[in-house]
Amino acid sequence: MADYQVPLKDMNFLLYDVFNAEKLWQSLPTLAERVDRETADAILQECAKIAEQEIAPLSRNGDEVGVSFKEGKVSTAPGYKAAFDTYAQGGWTSLGGEPAYGGMGMPKMLTAFHEEMLCSADISFSLYPGLTAGAGLSLAKHGSEALKQRYLTRMYAGDWSASMCLTESHAGTDLGMIRTKAQPQADGSYLVTGTKIFITAGEHDLTENIIHLVLAKLPDAPAGPRGISLFLVPKFHVNDDGSLGEQNQVSCGAIEHKMGIHASATCVMNFDGATGYLVGELNKGLACMFTMMNFERIGVGIQGIGAAVRSYQNALEYAKERIQGRALSGAKSPNAEADSLLVHGDVRRMLLNMKAMNEGSRALSTYIAMQLDITTYGEGQAQQKAEQLVALMTPIAKAFFTDLGFESTVAGQQVFGGHGYVREWGQEKLVRDTRISQIYEGTNGVQAMDLLARKVAGSQGQLVTVFIDEVRAYIASEQTTAMQEFIQPLAQAVTALDDLTQDLLSAATESKEVLGCAANDYLHVFGYTAMAYVWAKMASVSLLAPADSEFHASKIHTARYFYARLLPRCQSLISAAKAGPATLFDIDDALF
Amino acid sequence: MADYQVPLKDMNFLLYDVFNAEKLWQSLPTLAERVDRETADAILQECAKIAEQEIAPLSRNGDEVGVSFKEGKVSTAPGYKAAFDTYAQGGWTSLGGEPAYGGMGMPKMLTAFHEEMLCSADISFSLYPGLTAGAGLSLAKHGSEALKQRYLTRMYAGDWSASMCLTESHAGTDLGMIRTKAQPQADGSYLVTGTKIFITAGEHDLTENIIHLVLAKLPDAPAGPRGISLFLVPKFHVNDDGSLGEQNQVSCGAIEHKMGIHASATCVMNFDGATGYLVGELNKGLACMFTMMNFERIGVGIQGIGAAVRSYQNALEYAKERIQGRALSGAKSPNAEADSLLVHGDVRRMLLNMKAMNEGSRALSTYIAMQLDITTYGEGQAQQKAEQLVALMTPIAKAFFTDLGFESTVAGQQVFGGHGYVREWGQEKLVRDTRISQIYEGTNGVQAMDLLARKVAGSQGQLVTVFIDEVRAYIASEQTTAMQEFIQPLAQAVTALDDLTQDLLSAATESKEVLGCAANDYLHVFGYTAMAYVWAKMASVSLLAPADSEFHASKIHTARYFYARLLPRCQSLISAAKAGPATLFDIDDALF
Repeated sequence: MADYQVPLKDMNFLLYDVFNAEKLWQSLPTLAERVDRETADAILQECAKIAEQEIAPLSRNGDEVGVSFKEGKVSTAPGYKAAFDTYAQGGWTSLGGEPAYGGMGMPKMLTAFHEEMLCSADISFSLYPGLTAGAGLSLAKHGSEALKQRYLTRMYAGDWSASMCLTESHAGTDLGMIRTKAQPQADGSYLVTGTKIFITAGEHDLTENIIHLVLAKLPDAPAGPRGISLFLVPKFHVNDDGSLGEQNQVSCGAIEHKMGIHASATCVMNFDGATGYLVGELNKGLACMFTMMNFERIGVGIQGIGAAVRSYQNALEYAKERIQGRALSGAKSPNAEADSLLVHGDVRRMLLNMKAMNEGSRALSTYIAMQLDITTYGEGQAQQKAEQLVALMTPIAKAFFTDLGFESTVAGQQVFGGHGYVREWGQEKLVRDTRISQIYEGTNGVQAMDLLARKVAGSQGQLVTVFIDEVRAYIASEQTTAMQEFIQPLAQAVTALDDLTQDLLSAATESKEVLGCAANDYLHVFGYTAMAYVWAKMASVSLLAPADSEFHASKIHTARYFYARLLPRCQSLISAAKAGPATLFDIDDALF
Repeated sequence: MADYQVPLKDMNFLLYDVFNAEKLWQSLPTLAERVDRETADAILQECAKIAEQEIAPLSRNGDEVGVSFKEGKVSTAPGYKAAFDTYAQGGWTSLGGEPAYGGMGMPKMLTAFHEEMLCSADISFSLYPGLTAGAGLSLAKHGSEALKQRYLTRMYAGDWSASMCLTESHAGTDLGMIRTKAQPQADGSYLVTGTKIFITAGEHDLTENIIHLVLAKLPDAPAGPRGISLFLVPKFHVNDDGSLGEQNQVSCGAIEHKMGIHASATCVMNFDGATGYLVGELNKGLACMFTMMNFERIGVGIQGIGAAVRSYQNALEYAKERIQGRALSGAKSPNAEADSLLVHGDVRRMLLNMKAMNEGSRALSTYIAMQLDITTYGEGQAQQKAEQLVALMTPIAKAFFTDLGFESTVAGQQVFGGHGYVREWGQEKLVRDTRISQIYEGTNGVQAMDLLARKVAGSQGQLVTVFIDEVRAYIASEQTTAMQEFIQPLAQAVTALDDLTQDLLSAATESKEVLGCAANDYLHVFGYTAMAYVWAKMASVSLLAPADSEFHASKIHTARYFYARLLPRCQSLISAAKAGPATLFDIDDALF
């Protein structure tokens, strides 16, 4: 496998040239105090070193050895504990955290790149700090001051990690059915009892304590999702002086044997009257958990990007080095026994698909991160608009980036031919690891429904209008001759998205099933259209660069490639989205 | 995992109602003597029993345990030897073989279903007899009488198996570069020396001898592919009385650790001056091997179908049993805690995608098998036309069925949610096993070039015309009102394929790279169009069936689903195919 090289140049291009991060940071008072270009550069460079040198080298062995389970204890693969310590000691566990509790308070535009680097290095490793960061976000927003002082500070410090305990064996997507119970105690705490499955980082040996955020119901809670509360349940009790007490009534019953992410511990967690503390209000647990889940959903989207980037780097190196056959237009290396794989149109197609999808996903992810920063640090109308865009874009980030990420890992494997199927090259591991990103944190089908039914139909199309108006204003601002090749098809794509949205909303007044039947295709139409928007932005900046800049020439070509060969995918998706519910529901269940 | 159930009803429907196999068999004198409906039914039923009861139950354990390698010997997983013995004793290794050497001489229309059953049960198992059958085909066609008497009879009997030794570490697709040498000996034999990799079933413990068909070059052979000869190299020498002699200078150096098909031994094979016997003419080895490879390519396509069928059966069972959420149109099981997954539009979409692709692939595969039977047993113009269709359809069978098969296994896994990612349900194994089918026997990119550059452009479009004329004649023959919903879009699809073909052939006169750049998209356009043809045939037969036939109602609905939601994929594919080589070649290699 090629050594991982963090695409720092592309990250800088997005931050400073495409999305004007410096100007944004200066305009937001809180961020103006915390971050400038020099700080940001140092952070990205240092993070790149850790990802390239400390984490990436572990991943192959982590896959082969995996985590192991014995008598309730989970051992991570060799090297993971040392790497995690280095990572924590470097302060990386506090990167996005609240400064009042020891966090560095860095903007999402930076932490998103940090997440991408970790995922490119090793998705399994990234999950341990990733879950902790998400839990930290929920705790910072909804936890009491006492809980934050006692737990959040230590999570930021990297002393302790966290997990997110939602799923039960009979209830995944449908959390209203959970059976885990919380019994109120006289001292204000609760006794939590139940079994949770698929708990990432539920048990491991990287940190001395593990803080579980657990969904449970009080005995008298309302039925369904409105009766769910969120509890903080530590693995070890914490004394008032911050030292660890006895083990809580929490134990790991088993770990799952999975297709991939072998170095990530996926645990069955048993809570047997474990002491827990309420986070947020009673029966409002799902909302508190969603603070974490929305963070994790974007994080999972970034997993797709991270793996895809690695796949591209590997496949490109292989395509350059491997010789096989001759160019159709005549030998390119006549003195060699054969030409490199790179002369073949279909190999170039696979590589450029990956390149266009990866750089487009990173750009769109950066755009979403920027919106998130405006929601956190902005105010007034700008903040309100950013909140609407984040609501709209979160399911797209999760589902679209992971669907494209999986496609990229499969394409990279295909470039390797048979060598992509054997384990030694590491390419097939990327496919196995990435596959979960389309499933967990709400399957991509659930994301599609979140987008179309909850966000789009739920706002009567208002959220889509916010996005479309922004793109149309951008189109109006880009009227140079050189930009026409991008602006014209972008305008068509936006109009097609607008029309599709109106068609579906109108049809949904007849039958709600319209939404479920179109959701997946609609999400992809939206994803490609949004990606066309950021590709136009990248092209626009690149067209102004010096003509001899290879970086910008590559961007312009890749933008053209995206418009010529990927954006047209919308045509078929729109046809399928419009096919209507009869295609799915006229057939009786018995006839499947 | 759901118990495997062979779709015998669908197989019978295709044989007798859609493709009139009885009539065909009666019209071909050789087949008329060998097979009738009663024989065929008995064969399919008995084969179904073996697949369901003997082979399918092995596959989970076969994946977990895999094959093992110790001191040059390969051990298959527990149960494989016993199952293979049962299989061989049942006469299944001789099913498609030449009667003159002990084969049963059954038509491909039956053996293709037999292959599908084996692949649904366990792709790994299927490879051992599958390679032997392919090698048998090559030996029957190109081997000397002596070789056939000595080796082919024992391969048909299931005493011995075979392998296909092409790839070397530096040369996969580009066989012209192979370095394995064959030194002529005074007695007419050759000493073969070289190392082959990725040799499926190169070494194992299922049979007492293994017959390797090896590509090698004589010391004075012409450079490139025209200097390749084919040799039969037995693992053990065979005495004149048929008993085994000493081991030949052949050894297994290692086995590969792979993403999937763990129960299949993928071997590094060392030939150290091993005695071999020429098959066919000197320097015509590639043509002899292609007899086998064309068989295997269709066989690999059927692997895609086999795994996809299993994926559908599992996912359907899970979707019916798993309860989660409520139908958008209101609760379907109001007394239960939740509705089944089957109420959700997006779950139905995934299942119907699989159903439409699987039944469409099986139908198209049956159509190709029928053409193969006409090439073997027919004569005159009918035979000539069938040969042209087989040449055209072989790369489509390999690449299209495996691409759709992989999509189906991934879709089935998605229906399972998180349970699809853990090993216990067996669903993720299908994804891992099927992935290789897109790679081996010539990657799907190589198939696409075989179709567009060799077959379509190589015949100046003549082969496509044969197919298109047949479909247009069919369209002209189906002018009932009821069939219009299929016939009209079919006519449009055929015209679009015709136009695309002409456009590409015309553009290729300017630049040959046009073909490489369009090949993959073109193959898929062709695949969906051909599938639309067989779906129309299935719909036509089903429309004539009694209105209360659930089987036929299901067919009609699925045909509608295919036309509404899958055939439109051609729109985007055609756009990409027409994007032209500039999108791939205007970017310098250094800018990737």
